[in-house]
Amino acid sequence: MKLVTAIVQDKDTTKLSNAFVKADIRATRLTTSGGFLRSGNTTFLIAIEDERVQTVLDTIQTVSKKRKQYMVPPVGLDAGGEHGGIYPVEVEVGGATVYTQSIESFHQF
Amino acid sequence: MKLVTAIVQDKDTTKLSNAFVKADIRATRLTTSGGFLRSGNTTFLIAIEDERVQTVLDTIQTVSKKRKQYMVPPVGLDAGGEHGGIYPVEVEVGGATVYTQSIESFHQF
Amino acid sequence: MKLVTAIVQDKDTTKLSNAFVKADIRATRLTTSGGFLRSGNTTFLIAIEDERVQTVLDTIQTVSKKRKQYMVPPVGLDAGGEHGGIYPVEVEVGGATVYTQSIESFHQF
Ligand code: NI
Ligand code: NI
Ligand code: NI
Repeated sequence: MKLVTAIVQDKDTTKLSNAFVKADIRATRLTTSGGFLRSGNTTFLIAIEDERVQTVLDTIQTVSKKRKQYMVPPVGLDAGGEHGGIYPVEVEVGGATVYTQSIESFHQF
Repeated sequence: MKLVTAIVQDKDTTKLSNAFVKADIRATRLTTSGGFLRSGNTTFLIAIEDERVQTVLDTIQTVSKKRKQYMVPPVGLDAGGEHGGIYPVEVEVGGATVYTQSIESFHQF
Repeated sequence: MKLVTAIVQDKDTTKLSNAFVKADIRATRLTTSGGFLRSGNTTFLIAIEDERVQTVLDTIQTVSKKRKQYMVPPVGLDAGGEHGGIYPVEVEVGGATVYTQSIESFHQF
């Protein structure tokens, strides 16, 4: 057994939880803050058989990897001046920090 | 030193905390959700001397193992029809997922 | 890579978070309770390169080690009797429980 710990942005938490359920991966969810990701984040703890670690990593990468997204900036942050319009800007969202560790013994009571 | 991580149902949290105190086992408590257990759960982190790991496991098993319990179903869920009574049903409660890991260095400042 | 887990008193959380930022140490923060420290506590998870573990330990020790502090006891707890004044008493504050573990693989997606 291995322990996979994944820290993801809050905005990806629900989608990732659903992807875990669909892949029959049991993850315990912790509300966390700070660290690698600037905004609020969630930490998942996943104790899993060695041969399924890669599936867990693939699931996390597919759902939560860093990607670009267009966002309309809130009114008032527009630096375009009096005659400038409000244009969507490209922002980076998502991203996951993931590490794996060995488990010595595993029990279900 | 070893790290014992235990995920138990919320309903067993207080009883298990008390059992740890009585056995002089120091556990850090995290509020968690999802994972192996369907309802709300609590994760305990216990850094402990190697020779006391079995005592920790025994304590968790004694308090939080899966067991049957009789419960009176809430009114309205009774499928017995107009003349059926409300009978207690057997439900499964409790259960713990526990894993141990090695600790490389341990410090108290 | 190593995982450093540090459990500190709530009163040291902000100061330690700031010290981590200043030292460019990325820490994920968990709200925890119970365990080694009597009052509310916070757990930090820090995944870090092997050669920086000592810097993490030094930072935690500097900010959160157990130390004495003078405190004026709340009115009503003064056992000095009718003519006794209210004198500051020495109390112990702070303290950290820290352990390190190995990480097998580390990923940023
Ligand atoms: Ni983070
Ligand atoms: Ni669970
Ligand atoms: Ni503690």
